[in-house]
Amino acid sequence: MTAQDALPIFLLTDFGLQDAYVGQMKAVLLARAPGCAMVDLTHGIEAQDVEGGARVIDEALPYLPRPAVILAVVDPGVGTDRRPIAVRWGDLVGVGPDNGLLESLIGQDGAVVHAIDPRGVGTEAMSSTFHGRDLFAPVAAFLATGGVVENVGPAVDDPVRLDPYPGPTLTMDGWIGRVRDVDRFGNLITDLGRPHVGEGAVAVELPDGTRPPFVDTYGEAADGALCALVGSGGWLEVAVNGGSAAERLGLGRGAEVRLLVLQGR
Amino acid sequence: MTAQDALPIFLLTDFGLQDAYVGQMKAVLLARAPGCAMVDLTHGIEAQDVEGGARVIDEALPYLPRPAVILAVVDPGVGTDRRPIAVRWGDLVGVGPDNGLLESLIGQDGAVVHAIDPRGVGTEAMSSTFHGRDLFAPVAAFLATGGVVENVGPAVDDPVRLDPYPGPTLTMDGWIGRVRDVDRFGNLITDLGRPHVGEGAVAVELPDGTRPPFVDTYGEAADGALCALVGSGGWLEVAVNGGSAAERLGLGRGAEVRLLVLQGR
Amino acid sequence: MTAQDALPIFLLTDFGLQDAYVGQMKAVLLARAPGCAMVDLTHGIEAQDVEGGARVIDEALPYLPRPAVILAVVDPGVGTDRRPIAVRWGDLVGVGPDNGLLESLIGQDGAVVHAIDPRGVGTEAMSSTFHGRDLFAPVAAFLATGGVVENVGPAVDDPVRLDPYPGPTLTMDGWIGRVRDVDRFGNLITDLGRPHVGEGAVAVELPDGTRPPFVDTYGEAADGALCALVGSGGWLEVAVNGGSAAERLGLGRGAEVRLLVLQGR
Repeated sequence: MTAQDALPIFLLTDFGLQDAYVGQMKAVLLARAPGCAMVDLTHGIEAQDVEGGARVIDEALPYLPRPAVILAVVDPGVGTDRRPIAVRWGDLVGVGPDNGLLESLIGQDGAVVHAIDPRGVGTEAMSSTFHGRDLFAPVAAFLATGGVVENVGPAVDDPVRLDPYPGPTLTMDGWIGRVRDVDRFGNLITDLGRPHVGEGAVAVELPDGTRPPFVDTYGEAADGALCALVGSGGWLEVAVNGGSAAERLGLGRGAEVRLLVLQGR
Repeated sequence: MTAQDALPIFLLTDFGLQDAYVGQMKAVLLARAPGCAMVDLTHGIEAQDVEGGARVIDEALPYLPRPAVILAVVDPGVGTDRRPIAVRWGDLVGVGPDNGLLESLIGQDGAVVHAIDPRGVGTEAMSSTFHGRDLFAPVAAFLATGGVVENVGPAVDDPVRLDPYPGPTLTMDGWIGRVRDVDRFGNLITDLGRPHVGEGAVAVELPDGTRPPFVDTYGEAADGALCALVGSGGWLEVAVNGGSAAERLGLGRGAEVRLLVLQGR
Repeated sequence: MTAQDALPIFLLTDFGLQDAYVGQMKAVLLARAPGCAMVDLTHGIEAQDVEGGARVIDEALPYLPRPAVILAVVDPGVGTDRRPIAVRWGDLVGVGPDNGLLESLIGQDGAVVHAIDPRGVGTEAMSSTFHGRDLFAPVAAFLATGGVVENVGPAVDDPVRLDPYPGPTLTMDGWIGRVRDVDRFGNLITDLGRPHVGEGAVAVELPDGTRPPFVDTYGEAADGALCALVGSGGWLEVAVNGGSAAERLGLGRGAEVRLLVLQGR
């Protein structure tokens, strides 16, 4: 495999872009996998939010080119005895800490998980606090240039799994969900998915009793009007056309959102 | 055309980098146009500020390599009946919503505009809220790999145009302009251009009567001193050498800036 | 040298990512060095913090692929008579203002420094405020595509050097250092290095008398507990496992951190 054939590497971390942590990781990737395309999924995961990172990977998965490498580092346990792992599922490979971040690969049928043996990949002088640069990036480069998961270290049959997200609660009136993310536009993205909305949902109700009307797209609502819709990730959002629902409502992560269903179904 | 020949794609959105929206768009681009260079003009356009986005594209245009693709998404009308369009002007092509964002291409002599027919570009399962990923990115990839604007859909002869920016007002004393942007350094960038400053301008006057001296470059002012100059985009800026004019003056977008000219001209 | 052989270019600026300054620089790079890999070290250097930028370059240097180009712009003196320079050290070249930013290359044995003659590199219509786009990017592209430092302009034998950082003060009790950076996680990164910690350091003492215990890695501390460790850059950090030390302690840049040593050594 020549440099030109290096697989693209998709990066996801909670490092932000203010410091040069991501830059140093990319320097290592490019030194070891010349010519590889490096694409930032995001470095804006909330610090140490493993579940949030796992969700972002899960939502991006259908859009990745194949084959490709995912290099994911949200790693509160760095330097402890948590294992570093590499996962292969079909023609995707993921590299990161064994803390559930790679759940969307590990949870698939046929996924293969190996622990990374640091000695095997030539990472001398490894820091105990920056495995993204010193351990995961070299392994990602190895996998992007023809290396295989089986060669990074011993097989693992008990990778850490994320607790299945409990999700919304079903009540007599319908579903009680929560705001799970607030995006850049101030849209409140809930844990109520398309199936919850599905048939029978008649209204969304916010904590103050407001019931924003359902629309198919932001622009259907009047300018500045509150609305509810299923967004691009497949989740129910509460939005303001041309404004920020988070600001308007004073709501954020964790706020309760009710999805009322037809009585008597 | 082989992957190595894919045109570079310049991206501009109001998505920010905190979420993975941009990452998902790039995944789609790379899946459909392997080997293409993807360059961020910026994703920091203020949410839904179509005019601001159009201005940033306009200012970047002279510096782009040719040929190249511009993928621009500031799209308050996503999912409504606003048309998605592709524009060709010379060896530049632009893809985005038909809302004026691509004005700097559309307004050129010989520009060709076509509406995008979603059926023609294989975007099954399109979301109604994220055309950046589901519609514009596939079309940008198509145009970056040998596709032509004529093949994305029917010709459009009435694309949405931006109202010509009214610009500064001429008075007996000179021009009254406004702060149009505040950059990262706190420089106040006005809508007064080089032609306004041209011959005859004798002073800049701020709302509180202060008249910062004209300089050619920030460093000509004393350390921490207020100054006025024509910046790299060709616009009059009010700046503080080594500091933030926005903070110092408590001024922001929309603040009035007067450009006094010689009496009796 | 063909386009495919263009050297990778590592960028460091204080421009941030909100504006399109970085995007315009990359457009120029790609127009003049098609196919070059462009990697952001960071654009988050504090505005006009030349020493901070120099330190980030210094810390990244060991991880860069060779050969490579560094394009660094933290440039309070832009447009004054400060010289633009290019530096070669071994198979690394750096381009930027002559203000100490490139100290980590200039300070090396065998480094060669040349002033950039703007006439030599075809930068017509140069702005006086944005040399990153109009002067440094074209020169970086020239050096990335086979050009040599000797051909950008006359040799310089008196480049501006950074005052050697005075570093911590030695007292009877040990070292008095300072917080030099606060990273995204709220870790307080000091100017006390591994050699200061070395043998004999028995405790870290914060301004309020707190003595956070030494650990090897964040995860060794209890959840939410304060700790001290040598971080990935080789500097003593004060951290909170799973939280922000800066917030917890109300400390930031410049705060004093004492490193107590064994009495009687």
